[in-house]
Amino acid sequence: MYFLDEKVRNLHRIFDQNARRGYLRLDLNENPGGLPQELIDKAFDGVITPEFVAQYPETLHFTEVLAKHLGTDISHVCLTNGSSEAIRYVIEAFTSDNGRIVGVVPSYFMFQIYSEMYGKNIVQVPYRDDLSMYVEDIIAELTEDTELLILLNPNNPMGNVYTREEFEQIMTVAREKEITVLVDEAYHYFYPETFLDYALNEEHVFVTRTFSKAFSMAGCRLGYVIGWPEGIAMVQKLCTPHNTNAFAMQMAETILETPGAIEGLIERFSKGRSYLIDALDEHGYKYQGQAGNFLFIQPKTDAHTIVARMKEEKKILIKVYPDVGHLGTCLRVTIGEKQYMEQFLNALLELDRL
Amino acid sequence: MYFLDEKVRNLHRIFDQNARRGYLRLDLNENPGGLPQELIDKAFDGVITPEFVAQYPETLHFTEVLAKHLGTDISHVCLTNGSSEAIRYVIEAFTSDNGRIVGVVPSYFMFQIYSEMYGKNIVQVPYRDDLSMYVEDIIAELTEDTELLILLNPNNPMGNVYTREEFEQIMTVAREKEITVLVDEAYHYFYPETFLDYALNEEHVFVTRTFSKAFSMAGCRLGYVIGWPEGIAMVQKLCTPHNTNAFAMQMAETILETPGAIEGLIERFSKGRSYLIDALDEHGYKYQGQAGNFLFIQPKTDAHTIVARMKEEKKILIKVYPDVGHLGTCLRVTIGEKQYMEQFLNALLELDRL
Repeated sequence: MYFLDEKVRNLHRIFDQNARRGYLRLDLNENPGGLPQELIDKAFDGVITPEFVAQYPETLHFTEVLAKHLGTDISHVCLTNGSSEAIRYVIEAFTSDNGRIVGVVPSYFMFQIYSEMYGKNIVQVPYRDDLSMYVEDIIAELTEDTELLILLNPNNPMGNVYTREEFEQIMTVAREKEITVLVDEAYHYFYPETFLDYALNEEHVFVTRTFSKAFSMAGCRLGYVIGWPEGIAMVQKLCTPHNTNAFAMQMAETILETPGAIEGLIERFSKGRSYLIDALDEHGYKYQGQAGNFLFIQPKTDAHTIVARMKEEKKILIKVYPDVGHLGTCLRVTIGEKQYMEQFLNALLELDRL
Repeated sequence: MYFLDEKVRNLHRIFDQNARRGYLRLDLNENPGGLPQELIDKAFDGVITPEFVAQYPETLHFTEVLAKHLGTDISHVCLTNGSSEAIRYVIEAFTSDNGRIVGVVPSYFMFQIYSEMYGKNIVQVPYRDDLSMYVEDIIAELTEDTELLILLNPNNPMGNVYTREEFEQIMTVAREKEITVLVDEAYHYFYPETFLDYALNEEHVFVTRTFSKAFSMAGCRLGYVIGWPEGIAMVQKLCTPHNTNAFAMQMAETILETPGAIEGLIERFSKGRSYLIDALDEHGYKYQGQAGNFLFIQPKTDAHTIVARMKEEKKILIKVYPDVGHLGTCLRVTIGEKQYMEQFLNALLELDRL
C-alpha cells in the first residue's frame, strides 16, 4: 500500500527565490561584496585538477585545520553541508517523537521546519513588545520534559544577543533538568562573543557555525557542529556520505590559513556598519540590531512599496518584516562594505519620502 | 531529560578512509583519470568570482538544463547533494515507522543504513550461489504490506542488470500491491539502458542518479531524483536549504552542454574495460560484472594479501569482497581509462603469483 508520511505531506516550505544574480543582494545576509578575488584565486589556482573534481572529498585534513583554529581536536567537530544540516541532525538524534523543543520566535525559520518535519513539539518563546528577549521567559519554558533548547546567538532577525550571564542562568536550569542545548552561532565573527567553551567542555551542549556569513562562502555550502565527542559521533552517524564538497573545504582552509583574512573581512564589514548607522542617525531613522550583519530599519513610508521599488528601480534586494514590535513593519537590510551601504542609503533616501 | 534516539545510538557506520590522494584509486568506483582538464577549465575559468562564492546557490537554471537533458521539465526533477541524499529522502517520506522495504543484498550499503537510521523494516533478497539475482525471488517478497522496493540498476557490487522484461514483471506486482519503487541508476551512462520513462510517466516510481560516477565529479557532490511532480515535491520539502553547491552545478552544466563530452568519457572508459577484460581472459582469470564501471576478479592467491600489497607496494587502492558466491573472496576493481587498467594489470600479474 502506498505510504506517504503525513508530516511531510503537511509540511509547508518556502524556498528562496532564484534569479538574484546581478542584484545588490541585501536580503539573505550574504556578504554582498564577497571575498577578495585574490583570496579566491589563492584557493583555486592550479587546484581544480581532474583528481580534485573526481575524487570523493577527503575531510580529515580540513577537519584538523578547523579543529586547530577552534583550539580543539577533531573528536569535537563534525562537518556538515551548511550549518542547517547540523541543526537537523541534532534535532533528529537528540529529541524523541513529539519531543519538546524550546526556541524563540522569530528566529532562523529552519528550527521550526525541522521540528515539524520530524514531528517534534516545538514551543516558541516570543519577544516582548520592546523587541527584547527576556531570559526568564525562556527559562519558564524549560520544563522537566523538555529535551532540546535551540538558541541563535546573535538571533536573526532581531539582532539581540544572550550575555554570558544570561546563558549561564539558562545552562544552570538546562543542566538541572537534563536538557540538551544547541547554540547556533551563524553570525559569529560579526559578533565576537561565543559559547564555544561550553560545547568543548561539557556534555549536551552543541554549537553550530557556518561559512556562509562572515566567511562569505554561501555558494560553497559548509558548516559544522562542535560538541562533546560522544554527541559529535551521533551527529556524524546521521551524515549522508561525503556530505561536504572539496571546493568548500579548499576555500575555507585558505581563509583560515591566510593571516589577517578573517580580520580583513570583519574590518570592511565594520566600516560599512558604522557608515550606515551614522547615516541613519543623521537622517532620523529608527533601527534595531545590536549584532549580526543585518539591521531592522523603520521606514517613513510603506515598507512593502520600498522593497518593491528597491528591486524594480534600484536592483537592490532587501526584506520586509511585518509587525516588528514597537517598530511596526520594518526593512531588514544586510550590512556589507561601505560602498554597498552607500548604494542602499542613497536609494532609501530617494524612495522613502513622505 | 536527556534523550538520544536508540536507532541512532545503535547505528553502525563505516566511513570511507581519507588519505587516498596520490594513490591510483580503483576502490570506490570513481573515475581514476577524471575529466579532461580543458573541460574543467572551461567550467571554471573566470567563473569563480566573489559573487559566485558568496551567493547562496541558484538551482533553477541548472535544473532546467538537466530537465532538458532528460527530456522533461523541472517539476519531475529534484537536485540533491549526491544521489544518496535523494535515496534518504524517498525512504523518509514514502515509508512508515517500521515500514517494510524490500531490497537485494549485496547492494549499495546506504539503502540498509538509511533504513536502520529511520527504523524501517528492510527485507533483503540474497543473490543465489551462481551470482544471479532472480526476479521471482524479489517478487516473492513484494507482500501487501511492502511500502518501498529499492533496486540499483546495474547493481553494485555484482554488476548484474534487470532487463526491461524483468522490471515490467516487478512493476506489474508493484502497481497491484501499491508499492513505491525506487531505481537507483548511479551507474547510468556506463550502462545505457534506463527505466527513466517509468519515473516520468507514472506515479510512485523514482529514479535516482549521480554525477559522481560517469560524470567523474565525486568531489563536487551532486545527484538528483526523477519522479512524478507530487512525489518530487515531497522530496523537495525534505531538502536542507541550498543543499546543492554552485561549483557542482557549474561543472555539471558544462559537461551537459559540451557536445561529445559524455560520449568521450564513456568511450575512454569502454576502451579501458575492453583492455582489462581481454587481458584477464588471456591470463586465465575468472571475473564477473556485466555492467557498471567495476569488475569482480577472482585472484589466484589470497585476496587480502593482494589488496594490502597493491596499496603498500604499488600505490593502488582496490577493494576486497569476501565470499562472492561461487567466485569466493574477490577483488572489486574500478574500471577506468586504459592506462590505469594497464597499471593495475601489471601489478596484479606481479603480485598474484602462485
